[in-house]
Amino acid sequence: MVSVSGFSVSGVHAGLKANDALDMAVIFSDRPCVAAGVFTTNLMKAAPVLFDIGQLTSNSDNIRAIVVNTKCANACTGEQGLANARETARLAAKALGIESSQVLVMSTGVIGTHLPMPKIARGIELATAALGQDWDAAARGIMTTDTRPKLASESFDTPNGKVTLTGIAKGAGMIAPNMATLLSAVVTDAVLTAEQAYRLLKQAVEPTFNRIVVDGDMSTNDTLMLLANGASGVSISPNFEAQFAAALLKVCRELAQAIVRDGEGATKFITLHVKGAVDDAAARQIANAIATSPLVKTAFYGGDANWGRIVAAAGRSGVSFDAASVKLRIAKGETLTGDLLLFENEMPTQYSEERATEIVKSPEVYALLDVGQGAGEAIVYTCDLSHDYVSINGSYRS
Amino acid sequence: MVSVSGFSVSGVHAGLKANDALDMAVIFSDRPCVAAGVFTTNLMKAAPVLFDIGQLTSNSDNIRAIVVNTKCANACTGEQGLANARETARLAAKALGIESSQVLVMSTGVIGTHLPMPKIARGIELATAALGQDWDAAARGIMTTDTRPKLASESFDTPNGKVTLTGIAKGAGMIAPNMATLLSAVVTDAVLTAEQAYRLLKQAVEPTFNRIVVDGDMSTNDTLMLLANGASGVSISPNFEAQFAAALLKVCRELAQAIVRDGEGATKFITLHVKGAVDDAAARQIANAIATSPLVKTAFYGGDANWGRIVAAAGRSGVSFDAASVKLRIAKGETLTGDLLLFENEMPTQYSEERATEIVKSPEVYALLDVGQGAGEAIVYTCDLSHDYVSINGSYRS
Repeated sequence: MVSVSGFSVSGVHAGLKANDALDMAVIFSDRPCVAAGVFTTNLMKAAPVLFDIGQLTSNSDNIRAIVVNTKCANACTGEQGLANARETARLAAKALGIESSQVLVMSTGVIGTHLPMPKIARGIELATAALGQDWDAAARGIMTTDTRPKLASESFDTPNGKVTLTGIAKGAGMIAPNMATLLSAVVTDAVLTAEQAYRLLKQAVEPTFNRIVVDGDMSTNDTLMLLANGASGVSISPNFEAQFAAALLKVCRELAQAIVRDGEGATKFITLHVKGAVDDAAARQIANAIATSPLVKTAFYGGDANWGRIVAAAGRSGVSFDAASVKLRIAKGETLTGDLLLFENEMPTQYSEERATEIVKSPEVYALLDVGQGAGEAIVYTCDLSHDYVSINGSYRS
Repeated sequence: MVSVSGFSVSGVHAGLKANDALDMAVIFSDRPCVAAGVFTTNLMKAAPVLFDIGQLTSNSDNIRAIVVNTKCANACTGEQGLANARETARLAAKALGIESSQVLVMSTGVIGTHLPMPKIARGIELATAALGQDWDAAARGIMTTDTRPKLASESFDTPNGKVTLTGIAKGAGMIAPNMATLLSAVVTDAVLTAEQAYRLLKQAVEPTFNRIVVDGDMSTNDTLMLLANGASGVSISPNFEAQFAAALLKVCRELAQAIVRDGEGATKFITLHVKGAVDDAAARQIANAIATSPLVKTAFYGGDANWGRIVAAAGRSGVSFDAASVKLRIAKGETLTGDLLLFENEMPTQYSEERATEIVKSPEVYALLDVGQGAGEAIVYTCDLSHDYVSINGSYRS
């Protein structure tokens, strides 16, 4: 993974998880960062989310570190939870020789239990001592039911120097659109204003993190942070904003897609493309209805080209369209190349069931539903629903 | 099951399913019935739904028979599908010595395949010949992934005579609220006007069939019919309307709950009671978010009292409330008796985990979420999400 000037990271085992698994991570900048965050819209916001919102309100141009713990979400924990978030920031600030006001915290794991503060304190000690360039360890240190770390990096050159962005993310379950999904931090050595950082982050989140669905649930803890420490010396003036936005979009898309690809129990990556809706919002509503349909997701899992379930999910999405103008195509991979038309004129086409099954059995499936009403479209990334999803979530706490 | 004067029924094996399983049913009245129907709100309405809507528009006081087939939903089948629905009615009318305009049809099964008309014709022949009082066979004849037949009956006495209602239903998958769920027919010997029949049916559907959730999907074929043949001679005048409404409500509730209890792969029956919302619609929106949450459903399956997932689902439901005023209680069975308070003041209570697990592991669980804002409430019946749900739906077509 590409390092970013001025940032050091670590991932350590603080004893929150069993078997020496990495369970805490720290991201540290050698100078103040401009920071922007997007957070869950869930009303039951976790203590670290409430804490970070407060930090960013008063201090968005002077952040130095992010501390992340797994295994305990510190959500639904009341006043004590907030006190524990504050104490985590205080301990990290002390170990790093900075101010508490310069520290952000993120937590993921079980809802409704308190942070085991002695272990958190020990983890902070270990993680601050281990700071370096091991981005893989940092990405591993924030995993819960994830099966692999998620990292992405982009660079671009300007006449004023090179700019780098590197991000890590964790996901897997409780993933739904309309939020900054679960935990992710992207750092850059670009010089950004706080206004820019927030605007560019919001812009990058919309077609990426806000377009992924694993199970339709929305976490209490979802947080995506962008830290810009300016170490490259390159100001993102209007001249370079398009380049920076494109790089940020790529990093966010790669991380968001990695979350879906590693969705709990997922065996398939599905790109749902809805076209022809009256507007983009309507297209998205249809795509979400399909992406959250247990019947659609189990059919994909079974490798069954059961297009009727896709069409039926669209039909109950709440968006109005004319059934007679609906067309459905599927293809392997992430584009329409080599597609097969399954449905039009309110009827299945004379397609080859063998070919349809071959497409749906492949690990990446693209589905294009055209409802034929207008120019609205949306792409949503999702995965299938497997036995393993049920196993993982039927026994997560025990 | 209690017979209803003037009605005869049958369930037969027409060869649609393998292994001699019953796969078609007929309900026949010896005189014209007033009929009312409620249908799926899915835009992709199946041919039998479109056909029946047409029949009821022109002929709601002169219906004599309902023909039901399984294995093929006759949905997404275009003009040919409508022609097959018409032909089914014509064949049944001929066999029964009545008019095509007096026949309603219902289909359930795979979407996008055409009715195998020779088998349907053979089934009509067998079913009309077998007409009698075997309600259990009729209820079995409409099953798909159901594991048991669903029947319910109620009677009440009036000074003018006795009135009886008997209903059958099938459900299991593709069950979501906001519709007349899947297939159900209730017949009565009461004398009803067409206006009364429709009004009373709509009223009974709202707290019953429209309050059940298996997987959040909505079928293309959902149909609930009420047939009243007047054979009891008892007019449901304003004096008796409350009695009739109560009996109809009981039959619909029993059938609707039976569908949830036999939900695909279900191991648990869950009554979700949301109170304290600003109005009933808001309460229902919260209850539906919880009932369709894969994380909540898998936790129930795993016997895990993971209340955090319930609270988190409420928090993302789109309904606004104050997190500080939320209380969650659970109990065994269908009422609050012996309840355990799990969550209040934004924190878990000091409850006994052992007792919580004991409650959640029981086959019937009641959960009461009070969001503390107003007088709105809603009850939704749902079930858990198990490995078997995934197995059943991952291989339904094959």
